[in-house]
Amino acid sequence: MPRKLIRKPAKKIGASPGTLVHTGAKKTEQARIRVIDYSAEKLSEVEIPIAEVGKCCPLRQTDSVSWVNVDGLHEVNVIETLGGCYGLHPLVMEDILSTEQRPKVEAYEDYLFIVMRMLHFDADKNEIKSEQVSLILGPTYVISFQEREGDVFDGVRERIRSGRKRIRASGPDYLAYALLDAVVDSYFHILEKIGDQVELLENELVTDPTPATLQKIHEFKREMILLRKSIWPLREVLSSLHREESALIREATGVFLRDVYDHTIQVVDTVETLRDIIGGQLDLYLSSISNRMNEVMKVLTIMATIFIPLTFVAGIYGMNFEFMPELKWKWSYPVFWLVICLMGGAMVVFFKKKKWL
Amino acid sequence: MPRKLIRKPAKKIGASPGTLVHTGAKKTEQARIRVIDYSAEKLSEVEIPIAEVGKCCPLRQTDSVSWVNVDGLHEVNVIETLGGCYGLHPLVMEDILSTEQRPKVEAYEDYLFIVMRMLHFDADKNEIKSEQVSLILGPTYVISFQEREGDVFDGVRERIRSGRKRIRASGPDYLAYALLDAVVDSYFHILEKIGDQVELLENELVTDPTPATLQKIHEFKREMILLRKSIWPLREVLSSLHREESALIREATGVFLRDVYDHTIQVVDTVETLRDIIGGQLDLYLSSISNRMNEVMKVLTIMATIFIPLTFVAGIYGMNFEFMPELKWKWSYPVFWLVICLMGGAMVVFFKKKKWL
Amino acid sequence: MPRKLIRKPAKKIGASPGTLVHTGAKKTEQARIRVIDYSAEKLSEVEIPIAEVGKCCPLRQTDSVSWVNVDGLHEVNVIETLGGCYGLHPLVMEDILSTEQRPKVEAYEDYLFIVMRMLHFDADKNEIKSEQVSLILGPTYVISFQEREGDVFDGVRERIRSGRKRIRASGPDYLAYALLDAVVDSYFHILEKIGDQVELLENELVTDPTPATLQKIHEFKREMILLRKSIWPLREVLSSLHREESALIREATGVFLRDVYDHTIQVVDTVETLRDIIGGQLDLYLSSISNRMNEVMKVLTIMATIFIPLTFVAGIYGMNFEFMPELKWKWSYPVFWLVICLMGGAMVVFFKKKKWL
Amino acid sequence: MPRKLIRKPAKKIGASPGTLVHTGAKKTEQARIRVIDYSAEKLSEVEIPIAEVGKCCPLRQTDSVSWVNVDGLHEVNVIETLGGCYGLHPLVMEDILSTEQRPKVEAYEDYLFIVMRMLHFDADKNEIKSEQVSLILGPTYVISFQEREGDVFDGVRERIRSGRKRIRASGPDYLAYALLDAVVDSYFHILEKIGDQVELLENELVTDPTPATLQKIHEFKREMILLRKSIWPLREVLSSLHREESALIREATGVFLRDVYDHTIQVVDTVETLRDIIGGQLDLYLSSISNRMNEVMKVLTIMATIFIPLTFVAGIYGMNFEFMPELKWKWSYPVFWLVICLMGGAMVVFFKKKKWL
Amino acid sequence: MPRKLIRKPAKKIGASPGTLVHTGAKKTEQARIRVIDYSAEKLSEVEIPIAEVGKCCPLRQTDSVSWVNVDGLHEVNVIETLGGCYGLHPLVMEDILSTEQRPKVEAYEDYLFIVMRMLHFDADKNEIKSEQVSLILGPTYVISFQEREGDVFDGVRERIRSGRKRIRASGPDYLAYALLDAVVDSYFHILEKIGDQVELLENELVTDPTPATLQKIHEFKREMILLRKSIWPLREVLSSLHREESALIREATGVFLRDVYDHTIQVVDTVETLRDIIGGQLDLYLSSISNRMNEVMKVLTIMATIFIPLTFVAGIYGMNFEFMPELKWKWSYPVFWLVICLMGGAMVVFFKKKKWL
Repeated sequence: MPRKLIRKPAKKIGASPGTLVHTGAKKTEQARIRVIDYSAEKLSEVEIPIAEVGKCCPLRQTDSVSWVNVDGLHEVNVIETLGGCYGLHPLVMEDILSTEQRPKVEAYEDYLFIVMRMLHFDADKNEIKSEQVSLILGPTYVISFQEREGDVFDGVRERIRSGRKRIRASGPDYLAYALLDAVVDSYFHILEKIGDQVELLENELVTDPTPATLQKIHEFKREMILLRKSIWPLREVLSSLHREESALIREATGVFLRDVYDHTIQVVDTVETLRDIIGGQLDLYLSSISNRMNEVMKVLTIMATIFIPLTFVAGIYGMNFEFMPELKWKWSYPVFWLVICLMGGAMVVFFKKKKWL
Repeated sequence: MPRKLIRKPAKKIGASPGTLVHTGAKKTEQARIRVIDYSAEKLSEVEIPIAEVGKCCPLRQTDSVSWVNVDGLHEVNVIETLGGCYGLHPLVMEDILSTEQRPKVEAYEDYLFIVMRMLHFDADKNEIKSEQVSLILGPTYVISFQEREGDVFDGVRERIRSGRKRIRASGPDYLAYALLDAVVDSYFHILEKIGDQVELLENELVTDPTPATLQKIHEFKREMILLRKSIWPLREVLSSLHREESALIREATGVFLRDVYDHTIQVVDTVETLRDIIGGQLDLYLSSISNRMNEVMKVLTIMATIFIPLTFVAGIYGMNFEFMPELKWKWSYPVFWLVICLMGGAMVVFFKKKKWL
Repeated sequence: MPRKLIRKPAKKIGASPGTLVHTGAKKTEQARIRVIDYSAEKLSEVEIPIAEVGKCCPLRQTDSVSWVNVDGLHEVNVIETLGGCYGLHPLVMEDILSTEQRPKVEAYEDYLFIVMRMLHFDADKNEIKSEQVSLILGPTYVISFQEREGDVFDGVRERIRSGRKRIRASGPDYLAYALLDAVVDSYFHILEKIGDQVELLENELVTDPTPATLQKIHEFKREMILLRKSIWPLREVLSSLHREESALIREATGVFLRDVYDHTIQVVDTVETLRDIIGGQLDLYLSSISNRMNEVMKVLTIMATIFIPLTFVAGIYGMNFEFMPELKWKWSYPVFWLVICLMGGAMVVFFKKKKWL
Repeated sequence: MPRKLIRKPAKKIGASPGTLVHTGAKKTEQARIRVIDYSAEKLSEVEIPIAEVGKCCPLRQTDSVSWVNVDGLHEVNVIETLGGCYGLHPLVMEDILSTEQRPKVEAYEDYLFIVMRMLHFDADKNEIKSEQVSLILGPTYVISFQEREGDVFDGVRERIRSGRKRIRASGPDYLAYALLDAVVDSYFHILEKIGDQVELLENELVTDPTPATLQKIHEFKREMILLRKSIWPLREVLSSLHREESALIREATGVFLRDVYDHTIQVVDTVETLRDIIGGQLDLYLSSISNRMNEVMKVLTIMATIFIPLTFVAGIYGMNFEFMPELKWKWSYPVFWLVICLMGGAMVVFFKKKKWL
Repeated sequence: MPRKLIRKPAKKIGASPGTLVHTGAKKTEQARIRVIDYSAEKLSEVEIPIAEVGKCCPLRQTDSVSWVNVDGLHEVNVIETLGGCYGLHPLVMEDILSTEQRPKVEAYEDYLFIVMRMLHFDADKNEIKSEQVSLILGPTYVISFQEREGDVFDGVRERIRSGRKRIRASGPDYLAYALLDAVVDSYFHILEKIGDQVELLENELVTDPTPATLQKIHEFKREMILLRKSIWPLREVLSSLHREESALIREATGVFLRDVYDHTIQVVDTVETLRDIIGGQLDLYLSSISNRMNEVMKVLTIMATIFIPLTFVAGIYGMNFEFMPELKWKWSYPVFWLVICLMGGAMVVFFKKKKWL
């Protein structure tokens, strides 16, 4: 049981809101800031050292689209500096650092704040790991925060670099869409892996169910509970983004947000389907346990019912009474065998009739 | 377990939206394009070779109703060409090719995009197969895409050919309705077949439940989960089509859409009813297992309870102690039989009283 | 299992909507048309032969309230003729004939189309039979279609004939209300009968549960599933009728529709209550099975646990070793009995402590 | 099973609405009419004989608040007379007499009609009895109908008599609120009593569960189903009263109605909580049955597994073969005991390892 | 079972609303009134003796923010005096004293009344204790009532004292937010503790489930039912506070209320997740009981099935018939052993094949 179900919240009870403390484990050694600044014509990509985070601030004013990506949240002053020069609300900064947030979208005066969860599935342990991704979408910039470096956003970077694609000609809202889409797409891969495992489990269940199968079903059920907790709220997030009448989201991007919203609903549907299937597997397991018990009991009953009366008969003629006429009769022994065989045979017929044999 | 629960999505994570790749198995050998162009007075029906797909493009401009039907999606350039000359959004083309879409309807500026699932039931394997059907409804045309050739739309073709019917006098919206209606009607036939199988199962359950019955119940339950995933969203699709205030849908067609919406609700109701019935069968199976176990246990208990004490009594007089006065007494043996019969008889009375016999 | 769960829909897949085919079994020998034409002052009641169905047509124009009641739907031309002269939409006629409709209400330009289900409970077979009733409510007429002759509407006829009642002074909307009310009232009688049966079942469950009891519970559960499917949509029907701002429904009738809507909710409540109670009975049955099994096992365990060790002791002294000092000792046999009684007594004390005895 | 689940509705199917028949058992010997007429300054309290019910009629016109309370509904003409002179709708009178109504509120032109259920808990039989209370709230009067005399309204009477309280200074809407509040408050007392019983059951379940405990759980579950049916609709009643923009309800009374609405929600919450707790008790009972069965089976298995092989060994040396060398060997008997003890010991170690001992 | 599920409501049935009686146990020895009066520049903090409660009244008029905190509700006259000079509605005063209120928010003309529940978890007894906290938010003041002194509000006091923080510069709405936030934050700590206990339970379940484990699962399930009853309504409270368009809540505070609303949803989500996990644990417990039973039964069946037939064979040759040829044959005894071993071996092979060994 390596994970805790419920994590401590960031701040002391009653502490002032906006107190910046990073909660959660430090998931990457070295925080990293990567900046891509682009427009249809030009592109500049630089990595900024932690100490010089202030260099990101002037990008707020440029007309080109600026994407500031921060990997690693344990350097609180990075968030503080960026928050300061981009005018982020203290609660936003607190939420970026409290990495157990529920997915949500919040509209502030000149930016949108989006929180999502990125998922990784560890097939060996049947365990899903999750990480918080926060996005700030401003009029000319997107700031993204991840708990550790990942490769989910690499495809988006590639598309920006390649230069001819729609992404270079569109604004920061399209960039934010591309990042959301990359995260939601990654869910499909996780669900595919889980689906494969559940499939294997189904086979195991049909061919040879053991208590270890039960344990696995229980683990999957638990994972689905936690997965659902991450994915359900995302539905609302994308629904409200899609409906949002914000000046920050151009009309052309709306179609794309509807598309990623559809994908999210598909993800939610799939999670529910998996839950139902796992629930059905638990029922099947319990039923097959009952079936096996029944089989075991039948064997016992048949054996005991046939031999206990026979043993009783044998016991009678093992008695040492002096006056037992049968003992002296010459044909007693053959007759004994006849009786025994008839009794046994009658039992077998009885059980055949009951369909136990 | 021949199907995968969760399929891989079409594109690489983070790939540009609108990248056209056909996902899913290639379900037909030869793609096929069939075009019917009709108005109240005239009708032309041609099959266009894949290579000359561009011939479909001028139909966009004609006043007559043009129905372009594409069977087989593995020829990506067909979709690309049609998409180009009919002005389809890149996401629409992507969705036509990603054959694991959830049923949906999307309004674009000058066309509606409708996705549905066509179902086939394979009674031997108790397995439902599903296929994606996409419709584009424009001001004077309908384009339909199927994964493989099927006969569900043949009735509609027949009605167009016969010439006197309402369909020839109506616009493309009525044609789209006719196609939707054909798909929804096909659901009834599938549910009827499943219903028959469930009926058979019920009989089996009452007369002779075996572990194979349990396996079948489990399979049906699973099929219902997947069926539901296809059919529930269709309800929303038809509900929003019916309410849609689109210039593409004439008022007279509204009544027909309401009718197909009603049919969809009936389908949904039936699926829920089947789910409830199958759930009830699982309960009944489990209860009858318990009942049988009870019966088995009673037989064992009765036999053991009657004969174990008797065997003990016989065992006593099989002992070899030198000083056992009973052994020498002349009437011991008859008295022994008397005692044995009394004990056995008492047990039988006891079990009769308990209603175990 | 005499009924099919899912019936075939009326028309061939892809057939033109409005194709008139009667589906479902022919439930009455002879179709019958009865017409009542009344106003506050006058009343005429006639039965029109099937062949002269056209005689009903002029009634559309009269100012008096005309009630055309058709029993038996297998004479398709009756519906066709009436549909023609009363201007019914082809889909309405199709729905009247497809007798597996879901209850619904549909507003057309100058009439309302209402579909309900009439129920009969066959207490012997624990089976509910259902039949479709369709109503057309026009400005001066009501047309009602039943699958077979029934006596539910007789009360309404009686009230019309008696002449002084509110019904004669009101319009066709009040007549439609009266018919709806009669159908909903008949539900109470069915639910009362089912309630009585469920009550009996409860007694059986407490006094002497058998596998037949389980079978009955299962049948009731199944009936409730099908009943619910008929009754739930009726709630929506009456709710929308009651809210409907139709010129066809006078304000004074609104209060009465609210009343019948209340009754429908009561019916729905009762169905849900019965479902809950039947579900609870299943739980109780399963628990009592477990309890009985427990009792059986206890008897077995007590008998086996007391006598198996005793039999072992007797077996020891039945051995034929030459050198067994106990065999020759004079007091062996009495001591043996003492030991046996002590052992047996200890067991009994042990079981008393465990509360198994 | 002294109660019927479903009662017969008042009138014959198809009978005219508003036909006045009292349904339900006659719950009080003598119907009684008590009238209190009050304003801030003056108060008159009289009891009017059944025969002179007409004397209540003039009170409709007075400016003072008149409260007419009718206990006992079997005197149909009392309701008829009051209905006549206070202008009640026939359906209202019918509903007052049909004592199986669902709680509801209905607005008529110049009065509100409120139906509630009053509950009594009979702790001996674990049974809830319910009775219908109907209120008519007019501009200057309140008429209340109960099935039998009860003491729930006595507190309200006391407050009116005492004279200085808010109730004397307020209108009939405040009086209606006070009556509603008295009924809802009485629910708390019933729920408290049921809660105590459920508490006792919990103790019984932990210390000594018997089949009688199961029976009690089942009875409580059933009571909760029926209780819920009475209380859930009350929530809607008070919610709509509280939102109602009726001239009959002064603004100052709104706050009080919100308060009684809050209490109703608390009652509903408590009912749901009790349901959940009782459901959990059923699970606990079933689990403890399984646990006990397990314990029983272990005892049986341990005894049988230890002694059956030993008995076999003893049986071998009870055989009468002439050539059995062990029988003659001097140390056979001691060695036999040694082997027996070693075998028994090994079994005990095995069971200790399995944690069965 | 030290707590009562359902508590007696405050007042006698039918008593006048606003009758002030303190209900619930007296949870603190000495009631205490602490007042903090602050603005951006100045701060005064005093404790007022119970007897001089009237001194709080003039604070209503001051422009500075006044926070009156009352610990202990058994001094009814304190609430009466404060209620009088701050113009509280009688129902508000009643609700403050009835400490079994459901969380709610009510808008009065010049103040908001908020009721919440404060929770404490007693890990030893697996028991959650709850206490009512009421807040009055006026234009320049906040009055808070607790049942006993607690330390949850100490952090807020600290922040006010420290002086530079946002809290000193903001109005009473921000103070109310800070108090709400402190209460909601305390929930996380309780859920964290429960989560840890549930984690331990999970380990126990996997390694060594006993009936005590079942008892614990049951207790947690029950606690979650009661917890949920406290927390669900809080969601509505904060949702309506957040949407409330009240002059009492400044726009800047809205963002903070949205934040605490988010936290509440997270709490609700966590409670639901815990419920699901505990439910899954119950299933797992029941399955592992079944598994164990199966194992026990297999051991019994194997032992009995192997030795009962062997004992029968031995019994045969223990018979005392005079004419049993085998008894005299020289090789009988070795052949007997051979047969016995073959029979035993065949059984073992049979069980290996069945995978029972």
